[in-house]
Amino acid sequence: MTDAAVARALDRYRRTIERALARRFTAGPRRLREAIRYSLLAGGKRIRPLLVLATGDLVGAPHAATIPFACGIEMIHTYSLVHDDLPAMDDDDVRRGLPTSHRVFGEGLAILVGDALLTEAFATMTKARGVPPARVVAALAAVAEAAGEVGMVGGQALDLAAEGVQLPLDELRALHAAKTGALIRASVRVGALLGGARPGVQRALVRYGAALGLCFQITDDILDAAGEDGNDGRTDVAHGKATYPALLGMDEARRHAHRAGRQAQAALARLGPRTAALRHLARQIEDRIVLARAVPPAS
Amino acid sequence: MTDAAVARALDRYRRTIERALARRFTAGPRRLREAIRYSLLAGGKRIRPLLVLATGDLVGAPHAATIPFACGIEMIHTYSLVHDDLPAMDDDDVRRGLPTSHRVFGEGLAILVGDALLTEAFATMTKARGVPPARVVAALAAVAEAAGEVGMVGGQALDLAAEGVQLPLDELRALHAAKTGALIRASVRVGALLGGARPGVQRALVRYGAALGLCFQITDDILDAAGEDGNDGRTDVAHGKATYPALLGMDEARRHAHRAGRQAQAALARLGPRTAALRHLARQIEDRIVLARAVPPAS
Repeated sequence: MTDAAVARALDRYRRTIERALARRFTAGPRRLREAIRYSLLAGGKRIRPLLVLATGDLVGAPHAATIPFACGIEMIHTYSLVHDDLPAMDDDDVRRGLPTSHRVFGEGLAILVGDALLTEAFATMTKARGVPPARVVAALAAVAEAAGEVGMVGGQALDLAAEGVQLPLDELRALHAAKTGALIRASVRVGALLGGARPGVQRALVRYGAALGLCFQITDDILDAAGEDGNDGRTDVAHGKATYPALLGMDEARRHAHRAGRQAQAALARLGPRTAALRHLARQIEDRIVLARAVPPAS
Repeated sequence: MTDAAVARALDRYRRTIERALARRFTAGPRRLREAIRYSLLAGGKRIRPLLVLATGDLVGAPHAATIPFACGIEMIHTYSLVHDDLPAMDDDDVRRGLPTSHRVFGEGLAILVGDALLTEAFATMTKARGVPPARVVAALAAVAEAAGEVGMVGGQALDLAAEGVQLPLDELRALHAAKTGALIRASVRVGALLGGARPGVQRALVRYGAALGLCFQITDDILDAAGEDGNDGRTDVAHGKATYPALLGMDEARRHAHRAGRQAQAALARLGPRTAALRHLARQIEDRIVLARAVPPAS
């Protein structure tokens, strides 16, 4: 497949995910539903669901199984952003160019939006069909673990504790591996589990996911430091949080990101020709550094 | 079985649940773990997990399946209390005689405690063993639905919107059926699903769960109005929220509670002699009214 063909295929998948999410939460009269739609359907790169679908394709998992998990993981990602933006957390007013949920709907409802999205994520994932139920249970367990105390929420708690503290590099890396990395790794792992991939293939895919997650976080920090707005970063510099550029300098941070990108590609080496979509996604993440170069630093 | 024997059996089950929860969250150095234990292991009646175990016993579900679900549902109940107590929600300082989570650990960490408990609840439930995985998936779906947008979280959003508003009785009933009732009904339904109960048995058990949930909420309101402290009520009177005694008067509220209690017993009528534990739990909930009579009203 040519690179342009892969890009078109991923765009189709992105639209598939948008439609599935919009169908899952059709417009309704209640304010909670309105608030869920406001945050969930506000766009975003949909990287995690694309990883689920692309990995699932690679190992032969049917869409009837991968699409519910792709949607569920994106719902978990969105809930984490809504709660992260709350006044008691990062206290952000803007997300993806729009006022944050609590600025529009109030703090109480924003808390419930997050709670609803997290709960409905699991409801959605139980709807996976076309694979043995044992695989659905294993994939649910992988998502819950990645999103929970040793994963995303644990990372957020470390982040909260580290506010105003300059962490050393190994602790910063561990924090991000939990807060951002765990759900990205789980996206890849879920595709592999639903497809019943052999252990060697699963291990290679998890290596890919781990390198990708690291690359994602470093490029996020770089975009944040460069004052780029459309990223997932949470104005970390403003919160006095440790970042890769602050710890390593911008040039060295870039080198780390490129190395993680190369590791992601290398992990796919023995998985044959059907890895075009995963390669493309890794390149896209790494290429965000170029975007940061084109943007003047924040004044 | 004599009534005393049933009470002893339920006490053993309560200790089993306490142990399972404490084992699931052993003491650790991190503040998030400390805060999870603070709220989860603070006691409580453990009614929902007892319903899971007692229903599971009735229909032959093994403990290897019902205990993870019993723990998971109690974790979901606890997360909902922690979030409900937050300043942006009910703004409560005391829960079960202790300072609320956000008063001890701060608002940010209290939000994360709830998020972690909800996520880890699903992780815990995926560990159910001894029944076909398809039943585990069905039970997970039932819990997620009950805890989500049409269930508990949806009820909390209605409650938030109704602050200072005197709802009519039918709306109050719908609110509680979602906010409190859904998870109680799900506790019974999960036991039935894990045991693979026949549809007729499942329907009877769901009728029991619905009547029990209603009885629970009315007695909670009565205890709250009587100024009784140890209940699950959220100082609703202080928040100007509609309650059964406020809408119906205390005597009529009591009659409604007793009627719901009778309906719960009636639903069990054709399920044979193994329903002693479920009968006992229903009577315990109904008997809380007697407790309220013994307590002077709040000054």
